[in-house]
Amino acid sequence: MRPSFDPTLYLVTDTQLCRPRPVADVVRAAVAGGVTAVQVRDKEASRRELLALTRSVQAALADRPDVAVVVNDALDVALLAGASGVHVGQEDLPVAEVRAALGRDRLVGLSVESTDDLTAALRLPDGTVDLVGLSPVWATPTKPEAGPGLGLAAVRELAATARAAGLLAVAIGGIDATRAADVAATGVDGVCVVSAICTAADPRAAAAALRAELTPVAAR
Amino acid sequence: MRPSFDPTLYLVTDTQLCRPRPVADVVRAAVAGGVTAVQVRDKEASRRELLALTRSVQAALADRPDVAVVVNDALDVALLAGASGVHVGQEDLPVAEVRAALGRDRLVGLSVESTDDLTAALRLPDGTVDLVGLSPVWATPTKPEAGPGLGLAAVRELAATARAAGLLAVAIGGIDATRAADVAATGVDGVCVVSAICTAADPRAAAAALRAELTPVAAR
Repeated sequence: MRPSFDPTLYLVTDTQLCRPRPVADVVRAAVAGGVTAVQVRDKEASRRELLALTRSVQAALADRPDVAVVVNDALDVALLAGASGVHVGQEDLPVAEVRAALGRDRLVGLSVESTDDLTAALRLPDGTVDLVGLSPVWATPTKPEAGPGLGLAAVRELAATARAAGLLAVAIGGIDATRAADVAATGVDGVCVVSAICTAADPRAAAAALRAELTPVAAR
Repeated sequence: MRPSFDPTLYLVTDTQLCRPRPVADVVRAAVAGGVTAVQVRDKEASRRELLALTRSVQAALADRPDVAVVVNDALDVALLAGASGVHVGQEDLPVAEVRAALGRDRLVGLSVESTDDLTAALRLPDGTVDLVGLSPVWATPTKPEAGPGLGLAAVRELAATARAAGLLAVAIGGIDATRAADVAATGVDGVCVVSAICTAADPRAAAAALRAELTPVAAR
């Protein structure tokens, strides 16, 4: 894993929700406000479009090498863009194969939606997965297929299991500034947000408000 | 390019049209009938599904190392499967980047739908593209978005230009046994078929019937 990966406030982009602003502009503002890592996600984009989008985000953060840019799902795009890593879901390419293709120096994240998913992830060879995304904490309109939320108690339990195995654990789904502190208190290494920043009139201020709620994580 | 790549009768798979038969079964029969190369295409499949599909086709052809298995569009799947190559369209990942990621020992094909597309392909550095797929010869229900057909005269002209530049040229779109000889007579290196084999009750016989029409190409 890249030593500079800090998942405290992990922005997952949504091109539609950022409109009419370019995603890269929203990302740049959000990082100025306190976002510590970025995942480029666009399930509607072609791989060609996703590659261009990823590069636009990388260019916007050229002066912030401390902020990792991870690509959702698209291993080929991550390879071509030289991204910091890939985040895959349970239905994406098998995570062990993604790790093999990416090598050891990149981050591999995996969405985990249940205890069974986590158990399976922990059975993989050491070093396959760096980070699990516990998903969704709450049901969320940006990913309706993700189903009902895990809830904070399950997130706490899954995070403890993942962290005991040496993995980073982040939580995603329905998290905004009013809920971020509760999520942080479960013991995750970070929180992921989509709408809370992508729909914000002022993404920098939105990121700063979220980050303020996350002090307990950073200080832990 | 792999020296064993023979595009004379190039089968492009369609999972839906093969049903209820597994694609790999149809491919195996078609190769027994005379198919010389296979491109695994499934725009509906997830990358995980496409990887499994590609491997099933590779396994079905384990005893036919002379028959290349190329993956449509999905560079990541091609890399993970160790496929013979990738075929990309004008809207897929940029072909120069696909070549860089795949290296020199694999086949890179590119769909060409107009003189402009071919001109652009010929402006790329030598060795970027091995093969152009002239598409579509005729309008085809398996790719309705491809628009009206190029027609045989345009295919002849495009094939001559491509071959003069050292590229292989194949034609695709609406080709069946009744039309294959006319297409071969344009001077292409091979013809691609989808429905003519995937919907056939007897894919081996269908491939043999097509191959018989292509003798002029093989003997050229």
